[in-house]
Amino acid sequence: MLSISSRGQNMPASPIRKLVPFAEAAKKRGTKVYHLNIGQPDIETPKAILDAVRHSDFKVLEYSHSAGNESYRKKLVQYYQSVGIEVNHQQIIITTGGSEAIQFGLMACLDAGDEVIIPEPFYANYNGFAVAAGVNVVPITATIENGFALPPIAAFEEKITAKTKAILICSPNNPTGYIYSKEEMNQLKALVIKYNLFLFSDEAYREFCYEEEQVSAMHLTGIENQVILMDTISKRYSACGGRIGALVTKNQAVLDAVMKFAQARLSPPSFAQIAGEAAIDLPANYFDTTKAEYKSRRDLIIDRLNKMEGVFCPNPGGAFYAIAQLPIDDADKFCQWLLEDFSLEGETVMLAPATGFYGTAGFGKKEVRLAYVLNLTDINKAMDCLDAAIKVYPGRI
Amino acid sequence: MLSISSRGQNMPASPIRKLVPFAEAAKKRGTKVYHLNIGQPDIETPKAILDAVRHSDFKVLEYSHSAGNESYRKKLVQYYQSVGIEVNHQQIIITTGGSEAIQFGLMACLDAGDEVIIPEPFYANYNGFAVAAGVNVVPITATIENGFALPPIAAFEEKITAKTKAILICSPNNPTGYIYSKEEMNQLKALVIKYNLFLFSDEAYREFCYEEEQVSAMHLTGIENQVILMDTISKRYSACGGRIGALVTKNQAVLDAVMKFAQARLSPPSFAQIAGEAAIDLPANYFDTTKAEYKSRRDLIIDRLNKMEGVFCPNPGGAFYAIAQLPIDDADKFCQWLLEDFSLEGETVMLAPATGFYGTAGFGKKEVRLAYVLNLTDINKAMDCLDAAIKVYPGRI
Repeated sequence: MLSISSRGQNMPASPIRKLVPFAEAAKKRGTKVYHLNIGQPDIETPKAILDAVRHSDFKVLEYSHSAGNESYRKKLVQYYQSVGIEVNHQQIIITTGGSEAIQFGLMACLDAGDEVIIPEPFYANYNGFAVAAGVNVVPITATIENGFALPPIAAFEEKITAKTKAILICSPNNPTGYIYSKEEMNQLKALVIKYNLFLFSDEAYREFCYEEEQVSAMHLTGIENQVILMDTISKRYSACGGRIGALVTKNQAVLDAVMKFAQARLSPPSFAQIAGEAAIDLPANYFDTTKAEYKSRRDLIIDRLNKMEGVFCPNPGGAFYAIAQLPIDDADKFCQWLLEDFSLEGETVMLAPATGFYGTAGFGKKEVRLAYVLNLTDINKAMDCLDAAIKVYPGRI
Repeated sequence: MLSISSRGQNMPASPIRKLVPFAEAAKKRGTKVYHLNIGQPDIETPKAILDAVRHSDFKVLEYSHSAGNESYRKKLVQYYQSVGIEVNHQQIIITTGGSEAIQFGLMACLDAGDEVIIPEPFYANYNGFAVAAGVNVVPITATIENGFALPPIAAFEEKITAKTKAILICSPNNPTGYIYSKEEMNQLKALVIKYNLFLFSDEAYREFCYEEEQVSAMHLTGIENQVILMDTISKRYSACGGRIGALVTKNQAVLDAVMKFAQARLSPPSFAQIAGEAAIDLPANYFDTTKAEYKSRRDLIIDRLNKMEGVFCPNPGGAFYAIAQLPIDDADKFCQWLLEDFSLEGETVMLAPATGFYGTAGFGKKEVRLAYVLNLTDINKAMDCLDAAIKVYPGRI
């Protein structure tokens, strides 16, 4: 029998998407489902950036430069300057979404069998990219009791081996919403200096910080050769479908290697590069409006969650996610039950079980991730559902 | 010293793009350069498919389904039917260019250390995708004397080991333009049955056949579980920048595995899926016009080449490439010399040395690839340059 690869077998299925058939069945029964399970923003994409694509007037949809259009990269230099990151356009490689930036970083810096340390819970697709690259993910647990702050540096040091090549962080964090403080970022800096590691920094949610500012890994001085920034326009401008991101680094050897991977796949998508370039010219207050909207949602959802008996949800400083602990036996069962067996006045809510965000088996069984990508009215209704559900869930503990 | 990965070091640089700095220098000196070096068609992208994107009116640029929009996949079923390929939309996964289809196929079917046999000369980026996947490319040489026909099956059999998992073909071929005959396709079928191998089939140039029709690997009966079709809209509709392709197979285990890789990277680009979907509604005679144009170019370039003393170029049946043997010592040196030291009335021509298309070191040293992506007038001028150049090239033999 002709069989697929072990890599294909070991590739994890998306933990967020595996409940989709149950949601579809619920909808077929006439149940309204509030989707708090996936980070697809409902915020409209700025019309100006869609119009830039719609008003384009080229005759041939050509390959772009493998590193992305030079005009776009030069514009991005301005954007990065505006957030305190000093780079030139040759230190920016446009990627097909943040996804490809992560893949390129892993491929260019780590060999099969090498290890990358990632604080858990973490963005589940890191697992997939690691399997594709043959790289081993070593999780270090952040706890809900500490609001998912950076785990103690000693915990990292315990896991560092001769195979460890990088630490991967995401701040503001998906799935926790936590923003690493300046002190925590400096601890990470000392760590990567001490052990000579790459620091991969996924900063997809840079602008979504509700009290304090984000500290970028690119702000850390003295480790310019170690920092690889992985970025995307997906969340920043509600432009997920564009598939435009960037890998940014001052490490020339990494840039040279990533360029070879970039050349092999020819170029990033041309249409959405036009949108990304137009985004740099959005009015300076664009993020203010979006941030205010997300902040009011966060305030509401966190308030509602913590008022439910037996529920605990730390207040996340950024992104548009929160992880809540519920009085339940098993988050996977609970989330499926919400779709299969529960409804409140014909409505229910879809959540992501947190188990999929932990690298350590068995962790996160009482936790769910909520993406606050719905308006305030819908969030209130979704919380009404959740509140009623945990009272009657058979596996309540 | 913090170093990049061995994979990053071993990743091949693009053999087509490495001469770019010399071309740029030539242009700075005021020399006009005819680009026959790269497969970027000059044919205009059909206005109707660009207009479909320009007239789109969604408000949020959302992720699509990880397998691509269902409406697009259902339309593609019609397209495939029109070329004699019977599949349903669940057997089609939309990819980010044909590049990603190749990557997904290698990742899902082969493990690191496994081998894929590819007739050489072959599309150089297969090397890059193989390095990324940790897969070893085993070349089998097709010869210019035989017009780059399929090498004898015995040559394949000699190279098959316990590690061999797949044979990868491209027909019509890049870089040779050769189209495998029905007999050759049946020989390949017998081979993959005998040794239980996957047959990866890159059919990017399906429509560009100037005398005989292409036989798709999907036309071969009895090996439905072994065939993985890798496809793209890039060349078909002059839509290279869209980055839309497809992986098509009837093997459910492969589809399931590929879907996990597809989910990890979330979705293919949304804008160009609109273009791809609109392309299915182009008038039936769309390819007639394009094909007639390419055929007249092929006829001209092959005629001009074979009239040059010491030059031999087999007549390629399809695609828009030809490989010619020149009376030169070293194709890499010659192509660089054309840009650095030669000009005819202020003009020169850029070609791709064929060495980059061979997996066997030292092969292709007297051969160049020409992509006939210029109009007839420019092709004539480019051939004038080449004709004059080989007469005065110091390394002429």
